[in-house]
Amino acid sequence: MLICTHCGRKYPAEFLRCPICNEPLQLPYFEGKIKKGNKVWKRFADFYPFTLLPKNSLGEGDTPLLYLPKLSQQLKINIYAKNETQNPTWSFKDRGTFVAMQYVLNISRRVGTVSTGNMGASVAAYAAHLGVKSYILVSKEIPEEKLAPIGIYGSEILRVMGDYGELYYKSIEVGKEKGIYFINSDNPFRVEGYKSIAYELAEKIDGDYVIIPTSSGGLFRGIHKGYVELKRSDLIEDIPELICAQAAGCSPIYNAFSQGKERIERVEHPNTIAHAIRNPYPPSGNAVLRILKEGNHCEIAEDHEILEAQKELAKDGLFVQPASAVSLAVVKKLVAQEKIEKGSKVILVLTGAGLKYILPIRINIRDCSINDLSRCFE
Amino acid sequence: MLICTHCGRKYPAEFLRCPICNEPLQLPYFEGKIKKGNKVWKRFADFYPFTLLPKNSLGEGDTPLLYLPKLSQQLKINIYAKNETQNPTWSFKDRGTFVAMQYVLNISRRVGTVSTGNMGASVAAYAAHLGVKSYILVSKEIPEEKLAPIGIYGSEILRVMGDYGELYYKSIEVGKEKGIYFINSDNPFRVEGYKSIAYELAEKIDGDYVIIPTSSGGLFRGIHKGYVELKRSDLIEDIPELICAQAAGCSPIYNAFSQGKERIERVEHPNTIAHAIRNPYPPSGNAVLRILKEGNHCEIAEDHEILEAQKELAKDGLFVQPASAVSLAVVKKLVAQEKIEKGSKVILVLTGAGLKYILPIRINIRDCSINDLSRCFE
Repeated sequence: MLICTHCGRKYPAEFLRCPICNEPLQLPYFEGKIKKGNKVWKRFADFYPFTLLPKNSLGEGDTPLLYLPKLSQQLKINIYAKNETQNPTWSFKDRGTFVAMQYVLNISRRVGTVSTGNMGASVAAYAAHLGVKSYILVSKEIPEEKLAPIGIYGSEILRVMGDYGELYYKSIEVGKEKGIYFINSDNPFRVEGYKSIAYELAEKIDGDYVIIPTSSGGLFRGIHKGYVELKRSDLIEDIPELICAQAAGCSPIYNAFSQGKERIERVEHPNTIAHAIRNPYPPSGNAVLRILKEGNHCEIAEDHEILEAQKELAKDGLFVQPASAVSLAVVKKLVAQEKIEKGSKVILVLTGAGLKYILPIRINIRDCSINDLSRCFE
Repeated sequence: MLICTHCGRKYPAEFLRCPICNEPLQLPYFEGKIKKGNKVWKRFADFYPFTLLPKNSLGEGDTPLLYLPKLSQQLKINIYAKNETQNPTWSFKDRGTFVAMQYVLNISRRVGTVSTGNMGASVAAYAAHLGVKSYILVSKEIPEEKLAPIGIYGSEILRVMGDYGELYYKSIEVGKEKGIYFINSDNPFRVEGYKSIAYELAEKIDGDYVIIPTSSGGLFRGIHKGYVELKRSDLIEDIPELICAQAAGCSPIYNAFSQGKERIERVEHPNTIAHAIRNPYPPSGNAVLRILKEGNHCEIAEDHEILEAQKELAKDGLFVQPASAVSLAVVKKLVAQEKIEKGSKVILVLTGAGLKYILPIRINIRDCSINDLSRCFE
């Protein structure tokens, strides 16, 4: 059973959005206890409506949480990184794909998604692993280097000319017609996967702020739902403040939030280096706005700030894609604004690997001869 | 204390090779018990000569072991993949770098390595994390796309004209002169990191064969040492047969092994798509040969077989770099030769992520219009 995040009406599991208010649906809030186990799916089995079979897993989740001493000292806060780049296809998407695919297996042998890169690779990999045919719809602006990591798994890749925001809705429509279940960015079962990040964080740290790079809103909703479930289950005392982090070049949620609006508006000319969060009309945008009004916050960062933050994270040993670096860029702003207090425990959700998109990175190299190697170190 | 892998002479920890026979050194065999803990470093703390501090970790190790149903069925054996692509810099090198850096911190604030890509990124990341200055020596043939993932961490990259095999020795020499400790491919402390793969495998599976893509020989030696230690500690009954997997275009160890020679010879014109294992004169080549003679085996695969195996692994959900796919390519040959018996438990060590080198991958894309989407699925 699915529930509309806006009006609360209930629908069967195969629905994807509320037919009345066109807002996203979600599963009920689950409550339970933490079990013993090596994998988050086993420890939090109480919080899922079906059994998450290990044989369907590619080893997603249970990613490291690292303390970043240099950045912490510099910003006079305690910064932790939840490193989602260590998932099977090197982004957080794998958590959502794993859970959603368990649902898909019951209803279809054909699955699809609309992707800027990360989700396409993730769906392609799990579909291959499970022997399900997959269709990945990518935008015409996708850089070439993001295609091979999707195509290698044997998916059918369709490069679609047209508005990326609209493609979300169109794909669901065509999927119904053709018998292809689309597990897009904020699919209700995908969100159930993302909530496991909150579980893992709560097991290790009582954070003050969790910074979440936000595009469709699915990840933000997932982490929020996870914390709400922990709170309702008396497993945590307080939910950390959740910070929605967007790129200034495509910030529909920030725009509405900062202007006190109830609904997001489409960004007409999205333009940011953070491709993975460049959704001009996020399908869970209004749902995220509703969560933000419960005492959470939203901030943006410019492309130059994002690239600077990417370098700074690498100086602490973490090479993330620009969309992930938005988290640190936003934290620096919030510390400067004194919105984040000194000494706070701040968790960055590092959503995807830097290897995914290396074109914008400029580095210096020196050429040496092996016969003259000693001189190169002078 | 270090021991020569050939003559058994003993040397202080700062030595890198035996000054008498020029063979690699290793730490003594450790024995112990398995402790409780989430991390392999804690569970196997008995097997390390110093404490491996969690604060120096980037979250390496404890990678997933996956059963591959499709390939298993196809080859009539049970194939498992140890997925080292889920390490912090997306290759197995991180295990070695983590352990070696703990040693480096005691003796130097400057570290170096000679790399085809994976090791450079790994050393650069850990050096950044630990605030140690790093020098990465790369070969002039390194593809451009492998440089950004090293340079981003702030290392000094030196592109060296000259023989890559020779660079290993030359770097150690210059390092001594300049006070830079080089943790190259088969550095004794690096090997101590790699042995943790054997520990993790033994915890989960009683394998018959472990297939190890082999370049310098450091990884092969590490996994072997780990199993020997487990056996000496009565933690396992039998050591699986270890298979050294090389690319036909650069197979110095296979050449010597198949001809029954005691020593490897330099490959004059190495040429393979599997860059990460293209070492024409592996510094632990003779040491691996000695291990092979204890009842282990070596096999090669051609580039077209490697690329085919890369695709087949992706069809099971795993996108690995060509050097890792050598493992599957070799297994297919050994099954065809009936060297590997039907029903055997075979473990592939998948050393590094496919994202590291995407240029050779060719994929098909179809262009569609959003207004005509339905027709694209016909």
